[in-house]
Amino acid sequence: MFQSDGQKLKDSNEIQLIESIKQWLGNTTPPSPLGIGDDCAVLPPQPKAHSLVSSDALVFGQHFDRSISAEQAGQKLVLRNLSDIAAMGGYPKYATLSILSAGNLDFNWLKQFYSGIKTSSDTYDLKIVGGDLCQLPNDQFQAVMTIFGTATQPVLRNAASIKDPIYITGQLGGSILEKHYNFQPRLSQGQWLAENNLASAMVDVTDGLAKELNFLPSKSASILIDLKTIPIAQSAHILAEKSSESPLKKALCDGEDYELLFTLKHSIEPAQFESDWKQLFPHTPLTKIGSIIEKNPLSNIIDADTQKPIPWLKSFDHFNRK
Amino acid sequence: MFQSDGQKLKDSNEIQLIESIKQWLGNTTPPSPLGIGDDCAVLPPQPKAHSLVSSDALVFGQHFDRSISAEQAGQKLVLRNLSDIAAMGGYPKYATLSILSAGNLDFNWLKQFYSGIKTSSDTYDLKIVGGDLCQLPNDQFQAVMTIFGTATQPVLRNAASIKDPIYITGQLGGSILEKHYNFQPRLSQGQWLAENNLASAMVDVTDGLAKELNFLPSKSASILIDLKTIPIAQSAHILAEKSSESPLKKALCDGEDYELLFTLKHSIEPAQFESDWKQLFPHTPLTKIGSIIEKNPLSNIIDADTQKPIPWLKSFDHFNRK
Repeated sequence: MFQSDGQKLKDSNEIQLIESIKQWLGNTTPPSPLGIGDDCAVLPPQPKAHSLVSSDALVFGQHFDRSISAEQAGQKLVLRNLSDIAAMGGYPKYATLSILSAGNLDFNWLKQFYSGIKTSSDTYDLKIVGGDLCQLPNDQFQAVMTIFGTATQPVLRNAASIKDPIYITGQLGGSILEKHYNFQPRLSQGQWLAENNLASAMVDVTDGLAKELNFLPSKSASILIDLKTIPIAQSAHILAEKSSESPLKKALCDGEDYELLFTLKHSIEPAQFESDWKQLFPHTPLTKIGSIIEKNPLSNIIDADTQKPIPWLKSFDHFNRK
Repeated sequence: MFQSDGQKLKDSNEIQLIESIKQWLGNTTPPSPLGIGDDCAVLPPQPKAHSLVSSDALVFGQHFDRSISAEQAGQKLVLRNLSDIAAMGGYPKYATLSILSAGNLDFNWLKQFYSGIKTSSDTYDLKIVGGDLCQLPNDQFQAVMTIFGTATQPVLRNAASIKDPIYITGQLGGSILEKHYNFQPRLSQGQWLAENNLASAMVDVTDGLAKELNFLPSKSASILIDLKTIPIAQSAHILAEKSSESPLKKALCDGEDYELLFTLKHSIEPAQFESDWKQLFPHTPLTKIGSIIEKNPLSNIIDADTQKPIPWLKSFDHFNRK
């Protein structure tokens, strides 16, 4: 992305670059003042819904490398932002996209990156309304997206009550093989859970189930997990064969699953709920993996089989990578 | 900022770091879900006002260096984002702050950076509601802020009509000596211009007057500038003495003035307007520097004295620095 003999970012001036970006995005960026082109983007009033806001960055060498294409990197940035909106049960609306890049970035790489941004934005009806452009030293590229959505009844975290069953969508682990850039954010599922007042707490699984589970219960409750129910992705099995870790550990501790982890209100009948889910989302697996229990003094996460803490739990940490 | 023997960013895990940030910000970040702590921040409905959104980054080595303190760097990031809200005539409300940093950043430097963020946010009643944390290679630090404001009648750019006089606040040039991190965003002035329906177009001067002037008129108009009226800052004179550039050129072409550049609707009586301004904003100089004229085929910016283009005009460009 920095080595070709072709046109580089520094061969354009800023005004030309902004014009190129507008062309690449087409109708994914509305005319100013809603879209790119003024000091601020001007968004219409939101009389009833709450606004949702979240930011996610994409750093070359950290969140992606040369093993994925520019288009896939662009898609990844949009999808991981959409996943945060899904985790609140919201609808994506607008985003700003700031590009921090070396001047020696291939111009065509950036064009393909925006093509990926456009593809994923169009799929989920997201409009790009602004951003910033900054120069970095050679061989560096980063993008920061801030996404805005709406929700009439957003589902929060740390709000699950004792007895609420815990559910997870999809399958977990080994996302590094492909899923980390190629996944469907669970927007429809999150919206349905929010609007029908079904979920008591919800997050998306970005840093590994083991870490995200802690965000479900209120401070006065703990988590009981039935380890043999954890849905393990095929990728986790493939990677486990090449490493010293078990597939289960990979499913619990790998990052970037982008699945929904939520608790069902215990006043809802689980069998009926699961049957409704199957009818509405036949292609999205749903698994009950545990429940919220009274505060356990030993640990926040308890193994249902042994009734003891799980000794090997260690989740992803952005500043302390092992 | 990367060299001390003290505590480093990488000595904290992510959860500890988020807790530290919440402590540093105090009541500048409201309790979740409005503030930091969920997948998205949840903002209240805005029934009447438009929402304003803008993003600005701060890159170590580009927007600041070791000559300013961590606190001053934090203040600068907030102030430059506020200036974009001012340029629409809006009120700042919320911001997300994403930190992209090397693990070898001094922990105390980041604490002081947040102290600057807090000081400027509190002065202008801005709340920090979320963001992202990412790791970069050693010796790198960047922060991206996305700011949200409201405005019932935002003032746009590229909307000035022929005969509208052009005004600038404050004095221009030489901001590198201090003003680039230490200035008052012209929020009250912008709000007054917007709410009293006085300005036909408005921008803030971030990349030099010569560049920003182009953003005032509609496509069918040009700009007439009276060069001897340009308000030149003392810093521009000081820097000009040490360089081959004139103070006037510095005032027109230096960046980061963060003043308001606007056109007055020509239906408004300028003398009365200027008198009202003096009474309301006695400490903010206001200068009429030209007016919008019919489209000139020679150039977009015409010298009032010679009636010809100004030959030496060249403004700041982020990807083509001279």
